[in-house]
Amino acid sequence: MADVNAQPLDGDPAARVLVAGASGFTGALAAQIVWRHPKLELVAVTSRSDAGTRLDALYPRYRVSLELTELDLEEVDGVDAAIVAYPHGAAAPTVAALRDKGILVVDLSADFRLRDLATYERWYGAHGAPGLLDDAVYGLTELYRDELRGAKLVATPGCYPTASVLALAPLAERGLLSDVVIDAKQGVSGAGRGGGDAMHYVSMDENAFAYKTEGHRHRPEIEQELAALGSPAPVVFVPHLLPLDQGELATCFAQTSEPISKDEVQALYRERFTGEPFVRVVDGPPGLRDVRDTNECHVYVTVEERGRVLAFSAIDNLWKGASGQGVQNLNLMLGLDETEGLL
Amino acid sequence: MADVNAQPLDGDPAARVLVAGASGFTGALAAQIVWRHPKLELVAVTSRSDAGTRLDALYPRYRVSLELTELDLEEVDGVDAAIVAYPHGAAAPTVAALRDKGILVVDLSADFRLRDLATYERWYGAHGAPGLLDDAVYGLTELYRDELRGAKLVATPGCYPTASVLALAPLAERGLLSDVVIDAKQGVSGAGRGGGDAMHYVSMDENAFAYKTEGHRHRPEIEQELAALGSPAPVVFVPHLLPLDQGELATCFAQTSEPISKDEVQALYRERFTGEPFVRVVDGPPGLRDVRDTNECHVYVTVEERGRVLAFSAIDNLWKGASGQGVQNLNLMLGLDETEGLL
Amino acid sequence: MADVNAQPLDGDPAARVLVAGASGFTGALAAQIVWRHPKLELVAVTSRSDAGTRLDALYPRYRVSLELTELDLEEVDGVDAAIVAYPHGAAAPTVAALRDKGILVVDLSADFRLRDLATYERWYGAHGAPGLLDDAVYGLTELYRDELRGAKLVATPGCYPTASVLALAPLAERGLLSDVVIDAKQGVSGAGRGGGDAMHYVSMDENAFAYKTEGHRHRPEIEQELAALGSPAPVVFVPHLLPLDQGELATCFAQTSEPISKDEVQALYRERFTGEPFVRVVDGPPGLRDVRDTNECHVYVTVEERGRVLAFSAIDNLWKGASGQGVQNLNLMLGLDETEGLL
Amino acid sequence: MADVNAQPLDGDPAARVLVAGASGFTGALAAQIVWRHPKLELVAVTSRSDAGTRLDALYPRYRVSLELTELDLEEVDGVDAAIVAYPHGAAAPTVAALRDKGILVVDLSADFRLRDLATYERWYGAHGAPGLLDDAVYGLTELYRDELRGAKLVATPGCYPTASVLALAPLAERGLLSDVVIDAKQGVSGAGRGGGDAMHYVSMDENAFAYKTEGHRHRPEIEQELAALGSPAPVVFVPHLLPLDQGELATCFAQTSEPISKDEVQALYRERFTGEPFVRVVDGPPGLRDVRDTNECHVYVTVEERGRVLAFSAIDNLWKGASGQGVQNLNLMLGLDETEGLL
Repeated sequence: MADVNAQPLDGDPAARVLVAGASGFTGALAAQIVWRHPKLELVAVTSRSDAGTRLDALYPRYRVSLELTELDLEEVDGVDAAIVAYPHGAAAPTVAALRDKGILVVDLSADFRLRDLATYERWYGAHGAPGLLDDAVYGLTELYRDELRGAKLVATPGCYPTASVLALAPLAERGLLSDVVIDAKQGVSGAGRGGGDAMHYVSMDENAFAYKTEGHRHRPEIEQELAALGSPAPVVFVPHLLPLDQGELATCFAQTSEPISKDEVQALYRERFTGEPFVRVVDGPPGLRDVRDTNECHVYVTVEERGRVLAFSAIDNLWKGASGQGVQNLNLMLGLDETEGLL
Repeated sequence: MADVNAQPLDGDPAARVLVAGASGFTGALAAQIVWRHPKLELVAVTSRSDAGTRLDALYPRYRVSLELTELDLEEVDGVDAAIVAYPHGAAAPTVAALRDKGILVVDLSADFRLRDLATYERWYGAHGAPGLLDDAVYGLTELYRDELRGAKLVATPGCYPTASVLALAPLAERGLLSDVVIDAKQGVSGAGRGGGDAMHYVSMDENAFAYKTEGHRHRPEIEQELAALGSPAPVVFVPHLLPLDQGELATCFAQTSEPISKDEVQALYRERFTGEPFVRVVDGPPGLRDVRDTNECHVYVTVEERGRVLAFSAIDNLWKGASGQGVQNLNLMLGLDETEGLL
Repeated sequence: MADVNAQPLDGDPAARVLVAGASGFTGALAAQIVWRHPKLELVAVTSRSDAGTRLDALYPRYRVSLELTELDLEEVDGVDAAIVAYPHGAAAPTVAALRDKGILVVDLSADFRLRDLATYERWYGAHGAPGLLDDAVYGLTELYRDELRGAKLVATPGCYPTASVLALAPLAERGLLSDVVIDAKQGVSGAGRGGGDAMHYVSMDENAFAYKTEGHRHRPEIEQELAALGSPAPVVFVPHLLPLDQGELATCFAQTSEPISKDEVQALYRERFTGEPFVRVVDGPPGLRDVRDTNECHVYVTVEERGRVLAFSAIDNLWKGASGQGVQNLNLMLGLDETEGLL
Repeated sequence: MADVNAQPLDGDPAARVLVAGASGFTGALAAQIVWRHPKLELVAVTSRSDAGTRLDALYPRYRVSLELTELDLEEVDGVDAAIVAYPHGAAAPTVAALRDKGILVVDLSADFRLRDLATYERWYGAHGAPGLLDDAVYGLTELYRDELRGAKLVATPGCYPTASVLALAPLAERGLLSDVVIDAKQGVSGAGRGGGDAMHYVSMDENAFAYKTEGHRHRPEIEQELAALGSPAPVVFVPHLLPLDQGELATCFAQTSEPISKDEVQALYRERFTGEPFVRVVDGPPGLRDVRDTNECHVYVTVEERGRVLAFSAIDNLWKGASGQGVQNLNLMLGLDETEGLL
């Protein structure tokens, strides 16, 4: 095969990009998206566990022919922007070091998503760079587009908050939410690499179950965002794993503070998302297959017989729920069209 | 291969059984369970669409070497009991004719599940045998065991009410339920044979979605049963399809009329289901794989941070959610041990 | 969502393209690839069975917002090229009519693949346009690139011949093949839309089996191509279906006319495919996951202990096995870079 | 739930059985089958890695409520028979120690399958109990039933030899095989527990590939058995993994030493397997779904156009390919009906 290079760039790159933690599922996809991006140049992919391996040996379905190296923060040169795909808690110190060098950072971890330090520490332990919390912009693109344009550090939300908050945003912004139950369902890639016996093919095949039913750390993040939009409602959140690879489906049962009809709520959603390049308001409950390997979010809203609003959203957990949205944000930080490299 | 006969019977059969509608998923499994049952003799399997075909040609994974015939109600002889696996609405006239001949009937359709004729007619249309409604015993075995013992006609609930009501019964019986949200997830066999493009492997592979979000006819049935147990609470019910064969997972979010702690509710459940042969109270969220091809229901209950009770139940939709429970009921009707043929 | 248009074109299109039979799996993907192609304009998508439906309603995972219409050969205007995705046997008359109007045609059916009319008629019945057989170029791009450059009518091979012949071509070209056994395995999309009970999710889930074991019509096509390359060897060919969506794996057991070592045969393959944009010679048996949703063919060759050459190839049956290769051919017919729109 | 006990025994058990290595896939299933067996009593389940865990916590879909203990060969008392499910190479010393105590042994490893020590050592390394090789009976039940009746040590073949040799036995016994190619396909459970990233759900989902293409140690075992039956033919054997849980499909391409017609070969197979309780000669290529969770082997044979015989067999790799056949053999060793506990 001819040497498969990255997409040829349209002229000089808008940024030379490093992906840190590229051996995990979200880091590897971030590298792949940057690799094919017409305006970005992928200059390095790093990994502690897999340094020395080429990324396309680890992920043959991606085409990134770079070798993974260990990140040496002393030696990072010629890098304009970094996407950090580290585990929650591990990202903050690296993010801080990169910012110190003036490098733009898109963080895919939870480390800069919670605005309240105490809440962060309750769920994740000590914070590695609390001084940066105020600098971080929350990277749910459709809600914070203006702030993202000039941002230096973006905390990209994970798949659960992305799917849930997008599904509820039009109601939250009107202050209409009084009580929310979210039943979320996710493919196995959402659990990340590793996982041992529990993630073995034989364990997950023909299986489905809830997990973290005693409290999930994405709940406070979802509550934070709904409150920020205008609806400080309590949220019950239960995640499930499904026997599929990529996909995240949020089924939201919302009690509104005043009655709303099906026609009204559907009109509200269509209006709210008009012009959004990646949010599609669809005519029936969305399916995960429809969004697989895309950066799209499909949303459907209706009202059931007892008056509860049902809002459904489907995303690809690795794309709109992580790396795709990360690049969407990076595009904005760099002044590029937000869809660049993502269609 | 040696002619594979049914399990040899232990002496004379307790009943000679006919399965009507044996070419569908639930009818075929009912035939298979009767075929292997040590106390029952399978004397006929009927089907309009597939008459003339041997059942093991249609369902090679079952071993029933009988030929499907068309049901001729004039000619039904030597039959003590029938399991009717017809579509909703189509069952009632056949059930009535069989009862007229004195044949015990386990109906797997919805035709005799709703106690209120008007409610039935709203969801299913005209009823084919309204005079029999009062004779039918609701076949959720764990709740109506005593009535089932002498019953002549049993309306076996489907997988959604079985999973949901079992998950909530201990609370309902105490009158504790004030508001219930049920997010139900089911494998593709729950949609039955046929289905066209929508059920093609390529349509469901790597997919998951909600359906009937504008109102599902199992909701009134679940409300009926919770009220009968002692908690006339409103129920929001949303079903989903998952990319797997057999399984039904009900995730129930229950608001209780008074606070209950995790320890209390777990003790309540363990006590309630002590001694039940097919209900297992487990220590964490149950998985569908654990109950596949069994008549068991695995239940887990806990309380989330906002005080809402979370109750999960997993069953095999074709077994405990249909044919397995049907035979469990037939065992009781015949005075047999309820687990006979089901372990 | 903003109206999702096709990729903006780079200037005037190289061709205005019609896809006939766009409601089937291969036609729909062909439409999607043209829709996103930077040098082609998709002007119409046709279907008899689904006329009046928008293509993105039928295939939400694709984004083609055109309405399917019925093909009226009298009214085809402003079309430079057509991709015909009709069933075998049904394509020839339409292809002939389109050629009469001077329209370039990429045919995805088998109608113009067999060079010998008698062989065609044995396997497929009467031929609808035998006069065109000599005009058609066989569209296995890597083998007929030069002829494809000026071609007006291209018969694109299906997934079985594509995977099999690519896996064996380096040996065939040297005249080394004396006997070939091919065990081919394919995902369910290869069986096309429809299929009834046999393709229902519940039938294929956790299943795998051989089919057409009494003779498959792709065998003579594979023999034809191996002979054309230089090795008129007999071929035994057995296809299987696997429980997955897209993918085709050919396992070829080849007896060579003279011994060849593992090193020699691996060197031969690497040399033969050097510079090929879509064929990648890999270091171990290729996996279907690695090529899903790509136009690539991954090939591995080795020699087993008894001296038989083992050649493996993996493609996506809808891409390199049908629509992707069809566009690869169309690119060449139009003088474009063959990878345009396919990376 | 009521304490789920083993099937009640019919009178005194025919044997008290220990399963060694019960935390792996085959050991766990062997324990489950013995647990439900009407004539056997499961007295202990052992595991080094998981001692202290209850087996039904590790494998909730089985119902064995015994705790795994570490095997102490000094303390084995009251055990009449053992099923040893250890890795190849690790079994022999334990088998020898159990035999020293007079305990009947069914070994599921490869340690006693090869009759020639040198061949064993080439593929597996030094043998831990070569003195027992001559005592072991090869446990492909349908071929060695008479020898199995009095056997003290049985080497149960794995899924590849079981499926392959059963598919070819009628021809091998007639001395008709001159050359054999076997393309075998297996579900992921065949790879055992563990496996790391390669067996992660995300790695296997929508995937399929060959492995061990440079030589597989089951090849000499298959050659040994075909020769023992009467056809010392060379065998080419290539195994593949499929995205499913349980199942093994062998597609065999056999060159016969003299021509045989389709009718003749089909008659030969039907005659050969008449009366076999677990081998079913079917009318078309068998599917894995049809044998899942059963001890059956479905065989189909035909002749393709070039005269090569095609023989297909489908088994459940954990049942007929390991633990089910192990109990089938144990039944014979104990003088029980061979189907006991397996229907």
